[in-house]
Amino acid sequence: MKAVSSIRRAEQIREIFWPILGRLDDVDAFFDREFKRAEPMVRDVCTYVLGSGGKRLRPALVLLISRMLSYTGERDVRYGAVVEMIHTATLIHDDIIDGSDLRRGRPTANSRWGNQTTVLVGDWLYSRAMDLCLELGDVEVMRQLVTATLRMTEGEILADRQRGRLDIDESTYMEITRRKTAELFAAACAIPALFQPSTLHLTEPLADFGRELGVCFQLVDDLLDFTAARDKVGKPVMADLREGKATLPIILLIPRLDADQRDRLQSVASTGRFDRISEQEVLEMVRTSGTLETTQKRARAFAERALEQTGRFPEGPEREALAKATRILLERGM
Amino acid sequence: MKAVSSIRRAEQIREIFWPILGRLDDVDAFFDREFKRAEPMVRDVCTYVLGSGGKRLRPALVLLISRMLSYTGERDVRYGAVVEMIHTATLIHDDIIDGSDLRRGRPTANSRWGNQTTVLVGDWLYSRAMDLCLELGDVEVMRQLVTATLRMTEGEILADRQRGRLDIDESTYMEITRRKTAELFAAACAIPALFQPSTLHLTEPLADFGRELGVCFQLVDDLLDFTAARDKVGKPVMADLREGKATLPIILLIPRLDADQRDRLQSVASTGRFDRISEQEVLEMVRTSGTLETTQKRARAFAERALEQTGRFPEGPEREALAKATRILLERGM
Repeated sequence: MKAVSSIRRAEQIREIFWPILGRLDDVDAFFDREFKRAEPMVRDVCTYVLGSGGKRLRPALVLLISRMLSYTGERDVRYGAVVEMIHTATLIHDDIIDGSDLRRGRPTANSRWGNQTTVLVGDWLYSRAMDLCLELGDVEVMRQLVTATLRMTEGEILADRQRGRLDIDESTYMEITRRKTAELFAAACAIPALFQPSTLHLTEPLADFGRELGVCFQLVDDLLDFTAARDKVGKPVMADLREGKATLPIILLIPRLDADQRDRLQSVASTGRFDRISEQEVLEMVRTSGTLETTQKRARAFAERALEQTGRFPEGPEREALAKATRILLERGM
Repeated sequence: MKAVSSIRRAEQIREIFWPILGRLDDVDAFFDREFKRAEPMVRDVCTYVLGSGGKRLRPALVLLISRMLSYTGERDVRYGAVVEMIHTATLIHDDIIDGSDLRRGRPTANSRWGNQTTVLVGDWLYSRAMDLCLELGDVEVMRQLVTATLRMTEGEILADRQRGRLDIDESTYMEITRRKTAELFAAACAIPALFQPSTLHLTEPLADFGRELGVCFQLVDDLLDFTAARDKVGKPVMADLREGKATLPIILLIPRLDADQRDRLQSVASTGRFDRISEQEVLEMVRTSGTLETTQKRARAFAERALEQTGRFPEGPEREALAKATRILLERGM
């Protein structure tokens, strides 16, 4: 049922983002130019990671919102690329953190090139991203990105401290999610407002939209750890759990379990293996507990707040596309 | 003979940098305030790494040059700290790259906290450093630091590609050294010129001074791989060689060896062990080949060009101190 979801999803993305599909190609052309000039090693790793089936969701937001604000210059493509570079840098460093061997069904960069190279390529992406902001002297754009990067890193650090523990409280989880995921969404959405003086007043509403959307995105991603099929392009079922990452369905489940169940579930997060409890048993526990539905409900609340924000944006097909993107994002997790 | 060098060196630093010793304490107080506000994990790792006997050479340059330019504000302390934060971030990421267990005789951060945490703390230091520039809106300072960071990363990437190979040519080595080491020295020296409109014209001469000093610093460091004693505060003799890093004395030596000698020397860089050649034999080869003297000569040429630049700076005790620092730096390697 979900095996075809990736193909359907790619189609949906083309359908949602039709107003800016050409610009998305320009973002890829921007990367090509960037990496052609870079060290062969940077080029190889970046081409590999950026070419690994990412949905270009963050650049698409930059481009779509720029068009919604009637921006006609070239900054949308540049900063769409910059946001994706920062996102990619965190993915690369994240893989080192997790010691992951697979991402989206392919070997991770660090398992192919080693920690040494991937730390450096991540650093290069961050530095070059900042450099691309300075080239045009876009200090306010830079401020958005530096703040987002700092908060993301702090979110990762918070998450790292909790790694392997499933009994964290919901407010800690939300704090991590806001910083780790939502801040870069907020920056991606707010940056286009900075391109023209006439749209500066939309910076905050757009950042708020992005923040709500980002949390929604993460909650849906949490759901997918239990609802997605083990297909070739996705990550394996319960990969987060295996890696010791507490997702919301699990966090909500923990207080409902008896000591023995909790222990056995915790052992998966601690050892990365289903020795003391079977995958089937965990899935049963999650499914019958109702925490998937609760997580879905939370995700919907964030989506609704995001949709509310869109009321403040200029009317037109781009605003419609933005709203549609929010709704489809939410559906992914159902 | 060299066992007391670390104590002597600390004394020399106090002697050279006497005009700004109080300001150096302010840099440490700045760190304390920064890390008190940060995540406990950030605080622990940063306090550990920054407290590991670093000489605060880069902040000292920022402070001394600021005073030489009659700057009386607070930016010198802030950017002295920022430069040291960037330097520390590269050290931390470098240790992951090398898989090093020891730095300055103590366990490295990654061997104590793991790759996961240290990648993140390095990222945090970079981001927070940028953030500290943006707080005061010092875009030109930021430009210097972003450019330096980008070039440093590119230098590291170049070095990583050559890792384990000793038969690299001198020009590649110089290119790596300029980027990896000299650019942050250049930024540290140039930044104080940006604090006041009246000193803007000194930005380039100061950057040039820092660049020459930085290369000199690296060449002297290369010499120390063969001349320093294995004492508690230093790194072990031929640590660079063992880690597969080609230093100038070795690069100059390689063409003078026969195929068998080359092979056996190369085996140290490839395996990290002195199995096919003894430490004593390598030291003998280096000492009798004259490449230590050639490296020393190159270092002196860079020191002399740095000293030449000082002629363009305002006269006074700070300029004298800067010249003295350059000379003492050069002596370290003798």
